[in-house]
Amino acid sequence: MKSYLFEIIFTVRDYELDFQGIVNNSVYLNYLEHTRHEFVKQSGLNLPELHREGIDPVLVHADIQYKTPLVSGNQFASRLNVYKEGVRFVFYQDIYRLPDEKLIIKAKIETAILKNGVPERYSVFDDLINKYHID
Amino acid sequence: MKSYLFEIIFTVRDYELDFQGIVNNSVYLNYLEHTRHEFVKQSGLNLPELHREGIDPVLVHADIQYKTPLVSGNQFASRLNVYKEGVRFVFYQDIYRLPDEKLIIKAKIETAILKNGVPERYSVFDDLINKYHID
Amino acid sequence: MKSYLFEIIFTVRDYELDFQGIVNNSVYLNYLEHTRHEFVKQSGLNLPELHREGIDPVLVHADIQYKTPLVSGNQFASRLNVYKEGVRFVFYQDIYRLPDEKLIIKAKIETAILKNGVPERYSVFDDLINKYHID
Amino acid sequence: MKSYLFEIIFTVRDYELDFQGIVNNSVYLNYLEHTRHEFVKQSGLNLPELHREGIDPVLVHADIQYKTPLVSGNQFASRLNVYKEGVRFVFYQDIYRLPDEKLIIKAKIETAILKNGVPERYSVFDDLINKYHID
Repeated sequence: MKSYLFEIIFTVRDYELDFQGIVNNSVYLNYLEHTRHEFVKQSGLNLPELHREGIDPVLVHADIQYKTPLVSGNQFASRLNVYKEGVRFVFYQDIYRLPDEKLIIKAKIETAILKNGVPERYSVFDDLINKYHID
Repeated sequence: MKSYLFEIIFTVRDYELDFQGIVNNSVYLNYLEHTRHEFVKQSGLNLPELHREGIDPVLVHADIQYKTPLVSGNQFASRLNVYKEGVRFVFYQDIYRLPDEKLIIKAKIETAILKNGVPERYSVFDDLINKYHID
Repeated sequence: MKSYLFEIIFTVRDYELDFQGIVNNSVYLNYLEHTRHEFVKQSGLNLPELHREGIDPVLVHADIQYKTPLVSGNQFASRLNVYKEGVRFVFYQDIYRLPDEKLIIKAKIETAILKNGVPERYSVFDDLINKYHID
Repeated sequence: MKSYLFEIIFTVRDYELDFQGIVNNSVYLNYLEHTRHEFVKQSGLNLPELHREGIDPVLVHADIQYKTPLVSGNQFASRLNVYKEGVRFVFYQDIYRLPDEKLIIKAKIETAILKNGVPERYSVFDDLINKYHID
C-alpha cells in the first residue's frame, strides 16, 4: 500500500451533492485545500494568520482525475504527499472511499508562495520542510 | 486572437472571495461548469432534465492552470471550445479578465456521458455535435 | 445548561471564510442543514434516498441570530431540538464555540414535508417522532 | 406594485442546485449578500476595500421566508429596500421569479458596522444614506 505524510477523514455532507446526487466536482477542491491547510497546521503554521503578514500560498496548477463519485453518507480519507520543485510546493493528494479503499480522486496540486504579491523563497515553511524531509 | 465556440460574461461576487481576498480556487470549477451547461442549453438540452431520464455527463479529468487571481469587482469572459476524443467530450475552457483580456484560467475538462451509471454513446448530444461540427 | 436532543462537533475549514476572515453568513445554513440530516439519519432515514421516493423536506422559514463570528481554527458544537407545529417540523438549532461555549448562532428553522410537490402528513417520520417524543 | 431602491437580475446556475433539484437554502444568502454589495457599490463604496481599512459590515440577524423554490434555468429579480434602526442598517430584500413575478424569498437582514471589531457610527456610509434618503 502506498504511503502518505498526512491524512484526514471526512464524511460527505448532503449540501455538497449536486442535482445528480453526487458530490459536485468543485467540492473536491475544497476537500483538498482543507487537507493541505490542516497539514501545514501540524507545523504550527496558520494560513489565515500568514495572510495578515502578507504571505499567501496560491494555486498555480491543479490536475485532478475523478475516478469514482462520492455520494450521500460516504466516509473517505484524504491523503497527501508533498515535494519541492524549485520555488513550488507540489502536493500529491489522493482521496479514498472508506472502508473499501476505492480510489475516488487522484490530484496533483502545485502552489507558489507570494509575499505581498511577489514570489517568495518562503523560509517560514522551513520547519515544515525539515520536519517532513521535503525536498 | 484565438477563436471560441461560446462565451459568457460574469462578474465576481464578493462571496466567492476567500480569506486571501481572491476568488477561491474551487469557484473556477463552478464558473467552468456553468459555462458548459449554458453552452449545451444552446442546443435545446437541459442537463437537470436529462438527469431525470438517467443521462448524466460526469467529469473524469480536470487540468487547470491558474494564471492570475480574480478579485472583487472583476468582470471576465469564460470561453469554450469542445472536441470529441473517443467516447469523451473534451472542453478547452479559458477565462479572460475584462476589459484587458488578461488570461486568468486555462483549463482542459474531460467528460464522459453515463446512462443509468454506464458509459453511453450519448446520441442525445448528436444535434449539438452536428450544429458545432464537433469531432 | 440548556439540553438538546442531538449534537455534532465541527471544525471551521478555511475555505468557509470570506474576505473578512470570518465564516461567511451563508455557510451557517450548511452547518445547520448537515446537523438536521445527521439527526434524521439516527432514525434510519436518509434524505437523498427519500428524495428518490418523491419525499422532500423543504425549508419554509429560517430565523437566524448571528451572535459572534467563527474564525479559522474554531471548533464548535451544533445542537438541535425539534417540535411539531401542525404539519411543520420546527428545529431550534444553536451553535456554540468550543471549548468556551460562547453562543455563535441561535436559529429557528421551519420545514414542511412535500410528497411529489404536495404537503404530506409524512408518516415516514413517525419513528423519529416517537423515538424522540416529538410533539 | 411594491417599490424598491435597487434591483439585480440573476439566472440560476446548475451548481447552485442540491440533490432535490432546487436551489439550496444557503445559496439565497449568497444572492442577498451580492445584491447588498452591488447596492453599496452604487455609492462608490467597495466592501473588500473597506475591510482593508478595518471597516466590516456584519450580519446580526436574518429572517428568511422561503415561498417557492427556484429551479434550473429560472431567471429572477433580487430587490432591496434599506432603513436605519439606531446603529443598524435593516435591509428588506425580496426575490421574484421572472417573468411571472412569483414571490420566491422575503427576507429581513439586519447588519451592524464594525470598525476594528467595535460597533461604529459608520460615517463612511453617510453618502449612501443621503443619496437614498435612508432614515
